[in-house]
Amino acid sequence: MRQANFHCAGTAPGAPASALFNYVLGLADDALVLGHRLSEWSGRGPSLEEDIALSNLALDLIGQARLYYSYAGELEGEGRDEDALAYLRDEHAYRNLLLLEQPNGDFAATMVRHLIYAAFLVPYLQALSGSADHRLGAIAAKAAKEMPYHLRHAAEWVIRLGDGTEESRGRTEAALGELWMYTGEMFAMDVAESGLAAQGIAVDRGTLKPTWEAGLERVLSEATLRRPVDGWMQTGGRASQHTEHLGRLLAEMQVLHRAHPGATW
Amino acid sequence: MRQANFHCAGTAPGAPASALFNYVLGLADDALVLGHRLSEWSGRGPSLEEDIALSNLALDLIGQARLYYSYAGELEGEGRDEDALAYLRDEHAYRNLLLLEQPNGDFAATMVRHLIYAAFLVPYLQALSGSADHRLGAIAAKAAKEMPYHLRHAAEWVIRLGDGTEESRGRTEAALGELWMYTGEMFAMDVAESGLAAQGIAVDRGTLKPTWEAGLERVLSEATLRRPVDGWMQTGGRASQHTEHLGRLLAEMQVLHRAHPGATW
Repeated sequence: MRQANFHCAGTAPGAPASALFNYVLGLADDALVLGHRLSEWSGRGPSLEEDIALSNLALDLIGQARLYYSYAGELEGEGRDEDALAYLRDEHAYRNLLLLEQPNGDFAATMVRHLIYAAFLVPYLQALSGSADHRLGAIAAKAAKEMPYHLRHAAEWVIRLGDGTEESRGRTEAALGELWMYTGEMFAMDVAESGLAAQGIAVDRGTLKPTWEAGLERVLSEATLRRPVDGWMQTGGRASQHTEHLGRLLAEMQVLHRAHPGATW
Repeated sequence: MRQANFHCAGTAPGAPASALFNYVLGLADDALVLGHRLSEWSGRGPSLEEDIALSNLALDLIGQARLYYSYAGELEGEGRDEDALAYLRDEHAYRNLLLLEQPNGDFAATMVRHLIYAAFLVPYLQALSGSADHRLGAIAAKAAKEMPYHLRHAAEWVIRLGDGTEESRGRTEAALGELWMYTGEMFAMDVAESGLAAQGIAVDRGTLKPTWEAGLERVLSEATLRRPVDGWMQTGGRASQHTEHLGRLLAEMQVLHRAHPGATW
């Protein structure tokens, strides 16, 4: 796995590139980027019920992002609030997992991405709730209460679509195949994060892999889908090396705030 | 005021063009169209907090729309459920107020539109809660609990923007001027709705005008803005005569459901 560059790229000169700040920022970016992707479905869902459900999933994640960003801002101590961190950093400073910035694709692809990630995030947040950093543990505990619904919702759809018509099965299978190369990054840790894990602050991601695999396997088997074979894994998000999709996502998300911060013309 | 054509344009031949069905459908379309407009802000708000707030306003309205559509579907008795009514009618069958289909414009315009409408809808739903049609009254009572927050939120922004910088004041004033011609339709009733009002089922819209004017006046005066002078009022939405904006809104909202109803390929 590539070694991440541990400068906090894009922050103001002199900003402390502390391991904890970067770690919390990564969690915030994960939540915001996935929340934004889900919010792209707002008003475009396949049914009124599902439109509301997708918006609620997005709101959970954006709410989690706010908590992480606020804490990150305090850790940094440079006066950047949640909005400054969300709207005034560019893609070279974003630390989210590549999986989460991938375009929504069709509804099946969105649900597959959500299943893959929620099956990871549920045990991850459970573990992080016991962090030696109590503030971080409290944020994780709150988020941990919301994510099981995400997992259930995504699992139900993947089962329904995978074990559905030939077309729905084909779309679900294709999404699984296309997104698989981004799953490795969920379990990768750089030196700084490993250090935090050794102190009981961060979670050792590798230890969660069997839980994730077993959870995913249960859903895929009910969906009559096969888990793709592990091949080359694409990483880089945590080191702010992004796919071309993040720049466009941020451009859309940030345009209003950058033009008129807080809408105060 | 123009006489509405009381066929339920666009429904299947033989669908009962009952006054109550059309009335409930109009309330549903109002909620869905405005909810959709607000959902267009998802992921594009001026701040994380406001992004979440706008999404929640949208969710309230789309939730209200579902209740009205379900009831309308039952009244019609032709097997059309909430999704069929929301996604499978075109603009010539939509009965929403023209005010609500107007494009969001900038953030100030969105808040002005919301203030104008919420200041009307709060007393309207209160009155409708006492409808002689108990099912409709129950839906209105539920919605009536949600709308005061909408009114407060929009009022706070209009005051902040109106009594703000020269630019924010100019934008707010311009929006008020542009949207004013759509306010008359909120108080217009056709023969069928008047009939329902006479039976205690619908609300006599005209009786609410003084309440609406007084509520709006309080906000505008705190915002140091002047109420526009009543001029020519544009109506037609209730008779399915829409501005060019509704077609585009529906195209975006309906595309996925029409291609793949319920995402079941």
